[in-house]
Amino acid sequence: MKLYTYFRSSAAYRVRIALHLKGLAFESVPVHLLRDGGQQHAADYAALNPNETVPSLDDNGQIVTQSLAIIEYLDETHPSPPLLPGTAADRARMRAIAQVIASDTHPLNNLRVLQHLTRSFDLSETQKNAWYCHWVERGLQTVEKMLASDPRTGRFCHGDTPTQADCCLVPQVFNARRFACSLEGLPTVLRISAECEELEAFQRAAPQHQPDAE
Amino acid sequence: MKLYTYFRSSAAYRVRIALHLKGLAFESVPVHLLRDGGQQHAADYAALNPNETVPSLDDNGQIVTQSLAIIEYLDETHPSPPLLPGTAADRARMRAIAQVIASDTHPLNNLRVLQHLTRSFDLSETQKNAWYCHWVERGLQTVEKMLASDPRTGRFCHGDTPTQADCCLVPQVFNARRFACSLEGLPTVLRISAECEELEAFQRAAPQHQPDAE
Repeated sequence: MKLYTYFRSSAAYRVRIALHLKGLAFESVPVHLLRDGGQQHAADYAALNPNETVPSLDDNGQIVTQSLAIIEYLDETHPSPPLLPGTAADRARMRAIAQVIASDTHPLNNLRVLQHLTRSFDLSETQKNAWYCHWVERGLQTVEKMLASDPRTGRFCHGDTPTQADCCLVPQVFNARRFACSLEGLPTVLRISAECEELEAFQRAAPQHQPDAE
Repeated sequence: MKLYTYFRSSAAYRVRIALHLKGLAFESVPVHLLRDGGQQHAADYAALNPNETVPSLDDNGQIVTQSLAIIEYLDETHPSPPLLPGTAADRARMRAIAQVIASDTHPLNNLRVLQHLTRSFDLSETQKNAWYCHWVERGLQTVEKMLASDPRTGRFCHGDTPTQADCCLVPQVFNARRFACSLEGLPTVLRISAECEELEAFQRAAPQHQPDAE
């Protein structure tokens, strides 16, 4: 398997965690999101992934894009260890946590959005960072409520083994720290994030351990 | 089943389509996103859905949130007719289309984002609409490329029966029309959207046919 990735991409980070949790060997193909006007926009890459984003997975010629779709694909094609829980209700609850991050938080803050925002409205660095942290803080506070109010939360977001939700949570906490957003009032989020960071799979997936890290 | 919904919410619209495609009876519980400072922020509703968004599904006391998680839940608990295709590779391709809309397009344009954007940066109506259409047009152009380049596209986004991807596509096209965004260069998107709109399930789910329509 080949993973088209960028060390700092939150979506690529999610998939790297899933691959390492599954114990799957993969080759990292770096796509530099800032160099050459954004290598994700190069014709070859855009043909592979018309969204011109990372990650993309090449599984023996089968191209899979969008981080949550890739994680579901990996779970279906390599079921052990499972990254989704066993019942429909549990999967729904776990997916909802993942989607609060992957749909309602991160997309507001990724590189192309920040670039368009600052260019369109001529924002200062301070205004851009306020926008960034507004959504990160709102998203993580929502996740905190979902985790703290539900007995299905365990050592990890859902039960005592890592799931797709944890693959999303840790990169989002990483981003919050990188942009110095507030982490006040997030005891469950921070406890689970710390649990995850103890695991080798999460460590190997971290931005600073990627071949393209700067 | 009860669906907490708002007639114009794109995410609620997706789930209404799925419920009607499955032939499932449900009671609509309107949550007015603008009235009373936003009824989604009321304490009762926020306890049900900490993200304070619609839709939320109440399936005999089991609360499920986030539109794609709800559609997957409905497909798992009521498998016929299926809204996901049969192989892992096909599901991944179909989910990627859905997620380009549900993660990379719609979240940039929903009500809370437009409210925060215009308040934070003191934007004019023209600037707000330019932001809106920028992301709609980019998202639908990406979906067009994904559809037009893949032989798995059929009468619908994936094959000849509607899937989760079609549940996402039609509300996004509806929004594009509502805000008068460009629909140039989208022949496949518009063909499939028109096919869907022929079906009773899609008609019954449309904003103008909801009990809370204005």
